[in-house]
Amino acid sequence: MQAQENFGFNFSAGPAMLPVSVMLDIQKELLNWQGLNRSVMEISHRSAPYMAMMSEAEQSVRRLLQIPSDYQVLFVHGSASHQFAMVPMNLYQSGTMDYVDTGTWSCKAVAEAKKFGKVNHIQGLKMDNNSLTELKAPNEWSLSDDASFLYYAPNETIGGVEFAETPDTQLLYGRSVPLVADMSSNILSKPIDVNQFGLIYAGAQKNIGTSGVTLVIIRDDLLPLVDPKVATMLQYATYAKHQSLYNTPAVFPVYVAGKVFKWIEDCGGLAAMEALSARKAQTLYDFIDQSDFYTNPINLNSRSRMNVPFILADQQLDAVFLKEAEKQKLYGLEGHRSVGGMRASLYNAMPIAGVEALVNFMKEFALNHG
Amino acid sequence: MQAQENFGFNFSAGPAMLPVSVMLDIQKELLNWQGLNRSVMEISHRSAPYMAMMSEAEQSVRRLLQIPSDYQVLFVHGSASHQFAMVPMNLYQSGTMDYVDTGTWSCKAVAEAKKFGKVNHIQGLKMDNNSLTELKAPNEWSLSDDASFLYYAPNETIGGVEFAETPDTQLLYGRSVPLVADMSSNILSKPIDVNQFGLIYAGAQKNIGTSGVTLVIIRDDLLPLVDPKVATMLQYATYAKHQSLYNTPAVFPVYVAGKVFKWIEDCGGLAAMEALSARKAQTLYDFIDQSDFYTNPINLNSRSRMNVPFILADQQLDAVFLKEAEKQKLYGLEGHRSVGGMRASLYNAMPIAGVEALVNFMKEFALNHG
Repeated sequence: MQAQENFGFNFSAGPAMLPVSVMLDIQKELLNWQGLNRSVMEISHRSAPYMAMMSEAEQSVRRLLQIPSDYQVLFVHGSASHQFAMVPMNLYQSGTMDYVDTGTWSCKAVAEAKKFGKVNHIQGLKMDNNSLTELKAPNEWSLSDDASFLYYAPNETIGGVEFAETPDTQLLYGRSVPLVADMSSNILSKPIDVNQFGLIYAGAQKNIGTSGVTLVIIRDDLLPLVDPKVATMLQYATYAKHQSLYNTPAVFPVYVAGKVFKWIEDCGGLAAMEALSARKAQTLYDFIDQSDFYTNPINLNSRSRMNVPFILADQQLDAVFLKEAEKQKLYGLEGHRSVGGMRASLYNAMPIAGVEALVNFMKEFALNHG
Repeated sequence: MQAQENFGFNFSAGPAMLPVSVMLDIQKELLNWQGLNRSVMEISHRSAPYMAMMSEAEQSVRRLLQIPSDYQVLFVHGSASHQFAMVPMNLYQSGTMDYVDTGTWSCKAVAEAKKFGKVNHIQGLKMDNNSLTELKAPNEWSLSDDASFLYYAPNETIGGVEFAETPDTQLLYGRSVPLVADMSSNILSKPIDVNQFGLIYAGAQKNIGTSGVTLVIIRDDLLPLVDPKVATMLQYATYAKHQSLYNTPAVFPVYVAGKVFKWIEDCGGLAAMEALSARKAQTLYDFIDQSDFYTNPINLNSRSRMNVPFILADQQLDAVFLKEAEKQKLYGLEGHRSVGGMRASLYNAMPIAGVEALVNFMKEFALNHG
């Protein structure tokens, strides 16, 4: 903790802060990994030490999420934006793809899916009576009769909305429809039941590690759906068949992911992350709600534990707020360029001390400028 | 140099060794990049420091390769294997794609291109009178009348063959046909005339940095050929339009690439790399050729300066050779699993001292076991 405080606290939405103990560990072994006199970046991805590390990373995330044996865990090249294409390219055969649009990222996924088949673009947000944004409940979604899968983003980083529960597709459709989730921004922040999903993916740079790799968890029966004409590197089956070693993986991002998985296990796993996330979010929202100076635009039932957008009573003060925050070593608080305002991202690596420091700063800033 | 010798010498074909001074630099600033109290992995890719770093990386490689202003320099997600698909997906419209097959990697590119259009699979290797492998000269290639582009790999890492000259498509076809080159294993090892190419690509983990990003250099007029139905992240135009920042790039691999480009500039640029490469390759081939114990299976005119495969007179000794080499801190000398034997890769980061240490070891090993 001491070490973390020296570096301050980084509220960036992604690429986001990594646990300082993980970073120190990486730094220490950067030129001499496992006594090999080489970096993990400089050895063959088919060497025994690299393959063992990658396999242990997989086992670690399997333990954390209690992933059933009929699901593959894949380390896929590229970003979540690649998944916007890979999901329809691999899973769509006929009928309609149901996409729930709850913000910027799921909306981008809709646009990409339209290249590959028929999309039902479902509006997933509404306004409540107080003009706060709210997630529609799943039973309010306009679903298709011929849905081939249902796609949603459990957490939206820009709007700051998060589903508390996983939609039950059996209940919604009266039949088994694969549920696909973009969990880039809230994976590993609480226990989930993987059996409820057909496919889960998450870009690494928020709750997993550093960008360049995307974690994919896919149920075995969905692998053979792909058209063989799809590019080899865009087929989940390629990764599944070769344990993500069809070709050179993004070796450093995979290595960082393994370190972070292990760190979460050492911290007590997903139950501990859930408790920590709840405490961090509660601390910040409670402060905002009692303040006249700061506002969060989301209905209580739809608020994100991961990304807390807020606006200042006087938006002329935004630049001063950010500048003074940086002086206190509170970084990355600017809102997304598409919406402005402020945003504090509270991923797993953020300690409670960071939120307390932020609240103290916000309190003082409001006193001085309110 | 002292520092390098402490770590030994790493002859891995890729992921390959990085300059030790670059690695020490990365290690030093891992938790506190540019005095920001954060890692380069932990800040927004749209922040001024990250964008300036990325732009400087581009400028550095532009200076090194003297890239003309009508070419884009792109940092593309993923690996060279992604390019096997992206090249035909972006460039093919009609006619025939001419692919010269000179080994494992260009052969893989052929298989992938066949998913996307008509391919003329040109055999690019032959045997000389002494049963040594040799590259066919371009005027021996069976080219198509309706070629939409010509694809080749200037260096093949597994076979250990390399073209000394760039094929002249104007001469070969009597008209302008874009030349596409997979330079993953010899980019930045000598000056080239970029004007001779329509598109050059190179995966990072050999001569550029660490895996997860691929450098693409593409002439502007080739960007608009792409079908809009191609996945957004597989369109070169996406990267060109957004300065490779359409979405979060592979932030760490891009950062490492920038460091390596700068290191090459500091070493004297590509002329210096060419002289060093020539000296290293000559030293090793001269030793092999005068030896009765080691053999290289490639005709003089086709030998790679980057990857030197060799076999021992008695292949029963392979395991002992590798074990004793490791004791001398000479790493990564095993041949590719598809061909066996030995292979020494001599990318830019390998100092001449490494080749001298290898030759001394090989000499002694032959004396003891010959």
